[in-house]
Amino acid sequence: MAAGEFELIERFFADLGADRDDVLLGVGDDAALLAPSARKSLTLCTDTLVAGVHFPLDAPAEDVGFKALAVNLSDLAAMAAEPAWALLSLTLPEADEQWVAGFAAGFGELARRFDVALVGGDTTQGPLAVSVHLAGWVDPALALRRDRAQAGDAIYVSGTLGDAAAGLRIWQGDESLRSGPEQRFLIERLQRPQPRVELGVALAGVAACAVDISDGLAADLGHILRRSGVGARIDVDALPLSAALRTAVEPAEQLQFALSGGDDYELCFTVAPFAEASLSEIAQRCGISLTRIGVIEAEPGLRLCHRDGREAMLPESGWQHFMSRTLPRS
Amino acid sequence: MAAGEFELIERFFADLGADRDDVLLGVGDDAALLAPSARKSLTLCTDTLVAGVHFPLDAPAEDVGFKALAVNLSDLAAMAAEPAWALLSLTLPEADEQWVAGFAAGFGELARRFDVALVGGDTTQGPLAVSVHLAGWVDPALALRRDRAQAGDAIYVSGTLGDAAAGLRIWQGDESLRSGPEQRFLIERLQRPQPRVELGVALAGVAACAVDISDGLAADLGHILRRSGVGARIDVDALPLSAALRTAVEPAEQLQFALSGGDDYELCFTVAPFAEASLSEIAQRCGISLTRIGVIEAEPGLRLCHRDGREAMLPESGWQHFMSRTLPRS
Repeated sequence: MAAGEFELIERFFADLGADRDDVLLGVGDDAALLAPSARKSLTLCTDTLVAGVHFPLDAPAEDVGFKALAVNLSDLAAMAAEPAWALLSLTLPEADEQWVAGFAAGFGELARRFDVALVGGDTTQGPLAVSVHLAGWVDPALALRRDRAQAGDAIYVSGTLGDAAAGLRIWQGDESLRSGPEQRFLIERLQRPQPRVELGVALAGVAACAVDISDGLAADLGHILRRSGVGARIDVDALPLSAALRTAVEPAEQLQFALSGGDDYELCFTVAPFAEASLSEIAQRCGISLTRIGVIEAEPGLRLCHRDGREAMLPESGWQHFMSRTLPRS
Repeated sequence: MAAGEFELIERFFADLGADRDDVLLGVGDDAALLAPSARKSLTLCTDTLVAGVHFPLDAPAEDVGFKALAVNLSDLAAMAAEPAWALLSLTLPEADEQWVAGFAAGFGELARRFDVALVGGDTTQGPLAVSVHLAGWVDPALALRRDRAQAGDAIYVSGTLGDAAAGLRIWQGDESLRSGPEQRFLIERLQRPQPRVELGVALAGVAACAVDISDGLAADLGHILRRSGVGARIDVDALPLSAALRTAVEPAEQLQFALSGGDDYELCFTVAPFAEASLSEIAQRCGISLTRIGVIEAEPGLRLCHRDGREAMLPESGWQHFMSRTLPRS
């Protein structure tokens, strides 16, 4: 593959995303130059999507571009940060202009929606993978860290859980199974996760801790519990499940997907009791349901309880990457 | 592969690199929190290394870790920026703890040398690749952009050119060829490029433009020429060649490697005539040779001239990635 083909492709990224006044020098130099915010802290994150691991090899290019940015926006949302600038490392097996055009369209759509400018990156030859690096700003006193949960705090999640895992199941099955409205909804939840950026910003100063649900509720809430040195009791009958999930999946699997299904990119957050009253207004303003699913307790560990007194079992292994079940385990 | 193995591996990265006061929250949350500099601009860059493309599959892990950070430090050096924080996306085919320990050692050694803190990242399963994202600070009025070269400016390079390409040739040959002192020097230049960070910072306010030489002098100087709308005349007899290169490689190839060999990570920069006088003091202070190799001209194009009046020929294709010659061309 000649160098020129990759240079051609990089032109798709020259003016992608939002047009921001604080970009002094964007794509095309050794590095981008950006005007910092005077009163806030810089927040940086990165997430990589590997073909066949984080997205199906036959996923539409638009969806891969959308999701590569969405998963990073979700990380900043879980800090209550406002996103600003992205870098993109794209590794392609070949210079497929049509694929890249689709990728750029999906990435650019989401970037413009959240006022993110693409300011640099590189395109290299190799197995298909996308690494996005996102920078944003947050008041450090209000950032939603993982180490601030206290016994007595309520635990909430946004939206519904388990949809993306069900969407993956459908995508991996026969193509004819993808056609119903529930199936399309679940696949959309997998391929085009909606990062809860407005919600994260609204929770600054209200929530104590937050994490985005990328590896499954149990695994991600576990990060808060470990970092805060606390435990939690979850009311599994309260877990918010979509009508589509209830229709498309057996009841036993609904719970498994909701607890351990990755890729939902909802926020899980903890709130001190006195602050819970403000959540209904925030939910309305952000257009997203917020569900109380449990409580932080002093005793370490994650306890999953039904309302009739039964204890739920956590599936044996946590969720790693959503395709990991298809990969050989070493 | 179980999720736990990757989590174990991420512990190698928990406290890697320098200990900086401006890191409010490092590895272990959804994103890092960092205190910005009040008077400077943020500068961001990213570079990805793919196994078999940017480094040989049998390269030592320490060298891969070193080089993954070095190539990004080199990008910031070419902006005259001071590096501060890095994010690391590491994609591994398997959770090989020994390989990761070596990688972290090489990365950490260079990070501490340049006061860089590793503040976040992710580890995923897939074909071996490393994506590093580096943030630093520079006075925007003094940043070494690519679009400021003017006719009459002198063109300089640091160090020597072509060594890394020769090192690759040696590495790809019989292992017995790697043993001589020249050979080891050239391989070291390939595997452990020394980013010219101090030089870049010293050139702020002195040089007009700078670029780091990752794809070869001709290709990278070409970026300055295009962005500045100018041309250049290069005195090919002035190109700085190491004694090792002169010993290990035929004369015809010395010139080819110096002009088109990638991976040298020296700086190429332009200087207005009145500012040239300060370069000898800078060279001495930074402990690196600086060689005047040509001049910027108004007429577009790159002219390669011998002192006897012959014109040198640029090799047909520019350098893309140093291993690209071993990959099928589409």
